[in-house]
Amino acid sequence: MASNSIGSIFKVSSFGESHGKGVGVLLDGVPSGILVDESFITYALQRRRPGQSAITTERKEQDEFEILSGVFESKTLGSPICIWIPNTDQQSADYDNLKNIYRPGHADFTYDAKYGFRDYRGGGRSSARITAGWVAAGALAELALKQLYSDINIVAWVKQIHTISSSPSVIPKKRDQVDINIVRCPDAQAAALMESAILSAKNEGDSLGGVICCNIENLPAGLGEPVFDKLSARLAHALMSINAVKGFNMGSNPAELKGSEMNDAFISENGEIVTESNHSAGIQGGISNGMPICFDVMFKPTSTIRKTQKTVDTDGNETVLSAEGRHDPCVLPRAVPIVEAMVAITLLDLVLLNRVSRINL
Amino acid sequence: MASNSIGSIFKVSSFGESHGKGVGVLLDGVPSGILVDESFITYALQRRRPGQSAITTERKEQDEFEILSGVFESKTLGSPICIWIPNTDQQSADYDNLKNIYRPGHADFTYDAKYGFRDYRGGGRSSARITAGWVAAGALAELALKQLYSDINIVAWVKQIHTISSSPSVIPKKRDQVDINIVRCPDAQAAALMESAILSAKNEGDSLGGVICCNIENLPAGLGEPVFDKLSARLAHALMSINAVKGFNMGSNPAELKGSEMNDAFISENGEIVTESNHSAGIQGGISNGMPICFDVMFKPTSTIRKTQKTVDTDGNETVLSAEGRHDPCVLPRAVPIVEAMVAITLLDLVLLNRVSRINL
Amino acid sequence: MASNSIGSIFKVSSFGESHGKGVGVLLDGVPSGILVDESFITYALQRRRPGQSAITTERKEQDEFEILSGVFESKTLGSPICIWIPNTDQQSADYDNLKNIYRPGHADFTYDAKYGFRDYRGGGRSSARITAGWVAAGALAELALKQLYSDINIVAWVKQIHTISSSPSVIPKKRDQVDINIVRCPDAQAAALMESAILSAKNEGDSLGGVICCNIENLPAGLGEPVFDKLSARLAHALMSINAVKGFNMGSNPAELKGSEMNDAFISENGEIVTESNHSAGIQGGISNGMPICFDVMFKPTSTIRKTQKTVDTDGNETVLSAEGRHDPCVLPRAVPIVEAMVAITLLDLVLLNRVSRINL
Amino acid sequence: MASNSIGSIFKVSSFGESHGKGVGVLLDGVPSGILVDESFITYALQRRRPGQSAITTERKEQDEFEILSGVFESKTLGSPICIWIPNTDQQSADYDNLKNIYRPGHADFTYDAKYGFRDYRGGGRSSARITAGWVAAGALAELALKQLYSDINIVAWVKQIHTISSSPSVIPKKRDQVDINIVRCPDAQAAALMESAILSAKNEGDSLGGVICCNIENLPAGLGEPVFDKLSARLAHALMSINAVKGFNMGSNPAELKGSEMNDAFISENGEIVTESNHSAGIQGGISNGMPICFDVMFKPTSTIRKTQKTVDTDGNETVLSAEGRHDPCVLPRAVPIVEAMVAITLLDLVLLNRVSRINL
Repeated sequence: MASNSIGSIFKVSSFGESHGKGVGVLLDGVPSGILVDESFITYALQRRRPGQSAITTERKEQDEFEILSGVFESKTLGSPICIWIPNTDQQSADYDNLKNIYRPGHADFTYDAKYGFRDYRGGGRSSARITAGWVAAGALAELALKQLYSDINIVAWVKQIHTISSSPSVIPKKRDQVDINIVRCPDAQAAALMESAILSAKNEGDSLGGVICCNIENLPAGLGEPVFDKLSARLAHALMSINAVKGFNMGSNPAELKGSEMNDAFISENGEIVTESNHSAGIQGGISNGMPICFDVMFKPTSTIRKTQKTVDTDGNETVLSAEGRHDPCVLPRAVPIVEAMVAITLLDLVLLNRVSRINL
Repeated sequence: MASNSIGSIFKVSSFGESHGKGVGVLLDGVPSGILVDESFITYALQRRRPGQSAITTERKEQDEFEILSGVFESKTLGSPICIWIPNTDQQSADYDNLKNIYRPGHADFTYDAKYGFRDYRGGGRSSARITAGWVAAGALAELALKQLYSDINIVAWVKQIHTISSSPSVIPKKRDQVDINIVRCPDAQAAALMESAILSAKNEGDSLGGVICCNIENLPAGLGEPVFDKLSARLAHALMSINAVKGFNMGSNPAELKGSEMNDAFISENGEIVTESNHSAGIQGGISNGMPICFDVMFKPTSTIRKTQKTVDTDGNETVLSAEGRHDPCVLPRAVPIVEAMVAITLLDLVLLNRVSRINL
Repeated sequence: MASNSIGSIFKVSSFGESHGKGVGVLLDGVPSGILVDESFITYALQRRRPGQSAITTERKEQDEFEILSGVFESKTLGSPICIWIPNTDQQSADYDNLKNIYRPGHADFTYDAKYGFRDYRGGGRSSARITAGWVAAGALAELALKQLYSDINIVAWVKQIHTISSSPSVIPKKRDQVDINIVRCPDAQAAALMESAILSAKNEGDSLGGVICCNIENLPAGLGEPVFDKLSARLAHALMSINAVKGFNMGSNPAELKGSEMNDAFISENGEIVTESNHSAGIQGGISNGMPICFDVMFKPTSTIRKTQKTVDTDGNETVLSAEGRHDPCVLPRAVPIVEAMVAITLLDLVLLNRVSRINL
Repeated sequence: MASNSIGSIFKVSSFGESHGKGVGVLLDGVPSGILVDESFITYALQRRRPGQSAITTERKEQDEFEILSGVFESKTLGSPICIWIPNTDQQSADYDNLKNIYRPGHADFTYDAKYGFRDYRGGGRSSARITAGWVAAGALAELALKQLYSDINIVAWVKQIHTISSSPSVIPKKRDQVDINIVRCPDAQAAALMESAILSAKNEGDSLGGVICCNIENLPAGLGEPVFDKLSARLAHALMSINAVKGFNMGSNPAELKGSEMNDAFISENGEIVTESNHSAGIQGGISNGMPICFDVMFKPTSTIRKTQKTVDTDGNETVLSAEGRHDPCVLPRAVPIVEAMVAITLLDLVLLNRVSRINL
């Protein structure tokens, strides 16, 4: 797999830099005949867009996209789809003073170590801005999935910010239930506390991390490729690709259950085999079993903070850094659609791969 | 990436079934000139071997391997290396009664859902037995890594069994410090408790899960490919491929830190740029920064238990299951070398990929 | 390999349709630090551009390109490079009458058979217009190759048009020697005959095919991957990807030589091992031996002709077709830079792959 | 694509060396449910086997194969299939005197240039012996193809040896018609001349090349992936991977036809759209059109000859070489099943890829 592509059949390649001309994705292996509802792509991008609320960055990108290829008369042709999102509000001059400084927590030092050279403006290639393209790709993948399985349902939400947790009993069934507040936490009480915590951090020039939970319903059994493309491993790969993600966990702490508690008993229900409990979170042996799939994605706090920090310049001389720029005190509310996008991208690929798992369909 | 292969340059393909003729790996993209010390491969396989202690399965596989190709005069030729490990102690008849039953927690049902057909003997392809091949592949990868970076150090250990945790201050520097007890936990006190817990579970016909921690030292900065082959994402993919693994976490709960706590300040030390703390666990922007890389791997309890369980047969009729067979009450002690193997496989691939990151070397 | 990508490390993905918004390429696996001389890309595109002479199509595309990503301060960043070439002179209305007709020799019928649907305007995705992107990609690859091996020399030329052949003794050493006439045949006498033949075919509403020869000099020994990525197989794959190409042949008819004639004796020359003759055309066992590499690429005549042809409509009813539109009576003069581009793309990938062929560099 | 693998879904990886323990293939992406008729694999291997007639090498390999994994109760499981063919008649001592010599026409020099090291015994990895594995893989692929399309028919034959050609009017429809003589040329008169030519060459200590033709019938329309995995490009890649192959040509010299001659008129026949002529040899725009696919594969003469040849040793000192060993004076008769195998491998992959070309099947 090349560094900027993900997927084996439905392949998403990402390109672009934060303060270059724009960001985009190239989708290859797109089957023909997918009905492209551009308003759904717009909806997804609006949920990720900067500047959407008081707790997100003040950058004003509209994130309008253009489909450059692969779609004809509103249907996919089977040829590659290039989606382009121009950068419009970059203020590159903000970054001139960062040219020779390694910002703590950022990829400045590691990019230099790898490439000997970097686009220092706004993180360049390592900026979360590139996920705009992923969200567009995910929206298209989700359109394809829904064309095949009309009931499929992918919903992510903010489950934890810093040390404040959403009630485990609140499980949203639709994105509308997640979007009822700007934190994107369906538990209104917890959401209020989270919002204040984020605003406090913002005022202190600090930032917060947390956990996004995702639930996938009505996925058919049989998805996932043993042994190195398990559905769980592919989801982990896709989610760990998102900036700031540091962990991925299926289900609710299976490490502390006994086998007799963990194992989900099979039962017959309406002529279908299902499991009584769902400790395995919908996946056994790396393959979906038809039950809901749920997992947590752990985010570290945003690296850019206003507080003064100790660091070094590119020559190794010690210096201090106080970020100016505009940035998110907490990325999680805007990361919810990114999580959903990476899930849709992964699932579409595995759905297509499943068409070649048996010689007779 | 095909379902049974992992890696982009150094590519490991796994094959074989639990109760077929044997299991193996095919390694492609192996550079020429690696000195193949077969005793190191034997050492790794011995640490994974069943029957090594009172808390592992009683199966008696010796796991002797044969290199079928790619090595000439004890050096790799640059051609593919096939390593073959014959099955010798399979008792397939043990599984005849399982032919038509879906074991809870196992992949029986999901394999049938995917392929319409399965090798029901001992889990077939979904058995952890196939990781014997991975351990052999990992040992070869580690030999290659050490030939390039003599100081590189990959050490995994059992950090938690069920609810018993090792002291966080005990960080083993060598595998010998891990192998001092049969649990492979370097904290002797915790290890004793873990051992009793495992034996109790065994007596009850139950099983336990837990957490394996891994530490990688002296890895050069600059490894990992943005944006979809981040070192963190590739490690997550590789580790989540191991049977029973349900989660992967970098560092120590970054979701609950503030940005000002999480960010690791850069400092100069002996003319080299390092970080003062290591909350990012050695990875920034998906690329290694030269500091130790550490992460946790979450294992669910073994699915095979002796306790009677409710389930259904392949026609959906309800039935009960009491496993006979031989199995591990807790897989973690034997999984330690598997974790190390998957790390070495991942790192060698990224080390090779790094040779093409700059046009002028 | 996905359908619209070529290469394993240096990966070129093509996108766009003939009468959509434009055509482009996305280059992944591009090492950092390549100096991007945009004028060289312009030069290559000018040689492929329609409307450049009396024997090419009258379409007036200027083929101006834009680099959307991956280049910063005139150097490659190591991140993906997207190159975009807008369509400017498409006259889609010309194709309305072709919507329901299968043009003989074209891909209309086969695209419908595959995708159930096609962009009928100007061939859509199957148009040779998409090779504009390949030429841009090839120019960048050639810049990288020259940065590594300043002497490397890739020269293609028209060797045969219909039944008229260039003298085998005329072997151009530079592209200037090829561009001395509009046919791109360095043998002036043959070129004159070829030019008249093409003009006659044009007047008759017919078209001609032929052979392009390519010579690669000063390539290091050791390039090419056994066993399925032999340099010869990779070149064949790349060249056979060009529209209208029907054959690929190394050297001069080795099928009719005896072993004692074919085998090239090794000799020592200035302390270097070279071969006395070069019947193997620079490749042995699929790997370059340091001698010039030469091969022929066979082109069928352009499918679009003005002459009336019998065919069927999409419902299978018989009809006749007389193409209007603008088209090339012979594609070979404009295909010369396409051949060179596909060679450069292939070589750069194999050069990079060679960096991982030995564990110690 | 890794160096020793071919295919994108159905992936064949080759391993083994001529004088090591054996040769093999690992097949990944094999759908479940293929009925494995081992006698068909044996039949294919027997046709490739050395020592089968007076005009092949005297080596006595029986080429008995063993399926190590992936097949259960005579059906493919969907897991990888490893097929192993032990070496039994290698006489490695024959090659001791070649340890330090570069044989003209062979890959000795180029392997050293690439890897700095080689298995000098019998060509090692560059030996045509490894194609035994490919033939086994091709036989399995053909079984799968026939399970899907019972009428599919792949027949290759010797069309030319040195300067002796088979009559173009003799087109065999079955392999039995090819196997009527030891040359595998269905034109009895030409075959007799070919046989004497080969025997003369053998007596002179020389070798001959030639052309193998292949015809594929009853393949559905729509196979092949634009733009870089065209059926023609994929066939070229696969065929050019065979040892000694130097050229690949579709149809009968399209370079010398005019467009009005080349273009195949579409007509309706029994309610199906077919072409009146078949100059495009069954492929348009890189995709099959349902007509027979035919192509020529050009083989150079065997490099190993008994005649004394001038060459150098590994230090560059001039020396002479007279091969002893056992070798084929002409590889074409034994290469016929290898050509068919590479075709079947390529087609099965493209058939599977076609299952994901449309979102609604």
